[in-house]
Amino acid sequence: MTELTEVLIESDKVFEGRLISVRKDTVRLPNGRTSTREVVVHPGAVAVVPMLEDGRVILVKQYRHAVGKILMEIPAGTLYPDETPEECALRELREEVGYAAGRLEKLTSVYLAPGYSTELIHLFLSTDLQPAEGETDEDEFLKPVTLTLDEAVAQIANGEIQDAKTVAALLLVWSKQISRKITGKPSDFQEGGK
Amino acid sequence: MTELTEVLIESDKVFEGRLISVRKDTVRLPNGRTSTREVVVHPGAVAVVPMLEDGRVILVKQYRHAVGKILMEIPAGTLYPDETPEECALRELREEVGYAAGRLEKLTSVYLAPGYSTELIHLFLSTDLQPAEGETDEDEFLKPVTLTLDEAVAQIANGEIQDAKTVAALLLVWSKQISRKITGKPSDFQEGGK
Repeated sequence: MTELTEVLIESDKVFEGRLISVRKDTVRLPNGRTSTREVVVHPGAVAVVPMLEDGRVILVKQYRHAVGKILMEIPAGTLYPDETPEECALRELREEVGYAAGRLEKLTSVYLAPGYSTELIHLFLSTDLQPAEGETDEDEFLKPVTLTLDEAVAQIANGEIQDAKTVAALLLVWSKQISRKITGKPSDFQEGGK
Repeated sequence: MTELTEVLIESDKVFEGRLISVRKDTVRLPNGRTSTREVVVHPGAVAVVPMLEDGRVILVKQYRHAVGKILMEIPAGTLYPDETPEECALRELREEVGYAAGRLEKLTSVYLAPGYSTELIHLFLSTDLQPAEGETDEDEFLKPVTLTLDEAVAQIANGEIQDAKTVAALLLVWSKQISRKITGKPSDFQEGGK
C-alpha cells in the first residue's frame, strides 16, 4: 500500500518541553507534492481499568488544565524511560488509587490523536486487587470514584465520562463481558504486549 | 470541587502552526505550589461512523505521518471556523467516503488527550446513506474498507484497529445495538449537540 505512504523530506524541532516536544516535518505525498505535518512527540502512556472483586471499577476525578475541567478517567500516566507498560500500569494503580494488582491483562494499544501526536497508550484491565501503600505524587490531585461497569457505560452514553482512553477501555472490558455471556467462552483478547 | 482545580498564572505561546499551536502555561496547584503545563491548542474535530442499510460500517485506511503507519479509522476531520459539528460530519462523510447521510445521530463528545491537548472530538453515527458526488481533497489519500460491526469489534479486540476515536465510536454503536437487543428498547443516547 505504498500509494498511501508519505516520505519524510525535512524535520525541524520547534519546541522542546518537559512532557512533549513539537516538530514541523515536510513530507512528500503519494501524488509527488509536498506538505507540512506538525507532530507532537510524546513518550507514550498507559491506562488501567481497576476492577474490584464485585465487578465495580475505580475511576479518578482529575482537573485537566488543557480542557479547563474536571474529568472522570481511569488511572493513567506517562511511561518513564526504560519502564515497561506493565510496570507503568502497576505503578500508576498504586500511586493513583492505592492498589496492587494480582492480575494484569492487556486489552489493546491505541493512538489517541494520530493526526498530529505520536502518543500510543497501552490499555490494561487489572483484577485481584489488594490495598497497597502508595507512593503518591504530592503534586497530583485526584478523587477516586467507584462505579459498576453498567453505571460506567451509562455515563459514557450520556456524556458524563468524556475521556477517550477511558471510554475505549471501559467499553472494551464491557464488550468482553457481554461476549462471554453471549457465547459462553472468553472473547479473543490480546495476551501480553503488542 | 475547587480543591482539584488549577488556576492559570501565566501563558506563553511557544509555537503557532497550521493545525495546532502550543502554549506553555504556569498554574497554581490546589496545594499552593506552581507547576507548568504544556498545552496543544486544537480547533476540535468530528468523526462519523457511516452505517449501510445492511449494518456494515465504512472505515478508511490512511497513512498517519505522526505514527508512521497506515491506520484504519472512521471518517473524521478538523472543524472549520464557523462550522457546526453536524455540518463537519456531513462534509467529511462526503469527502472521505462519497456518501450523503439522511440521518445523523450524535453519540457523544470526548477529549482525546486531555493531559496536554484541548482537542474535543464529536462522534456521530450516520445512516440512510446515499452515494453523493464528493468534493474530495486532492492531497488526502484514503482507501475505504467495509466491515460488519462484529468484524470491526473483533478487529478492535485483536489490535488491528488502533485509532482511539474509532475504537470509542464503534464500541459505542455496538453497545447501543447490544443494549437494544437485551432490553428491547433504545438505549439512552444524547440527542443533538452537547
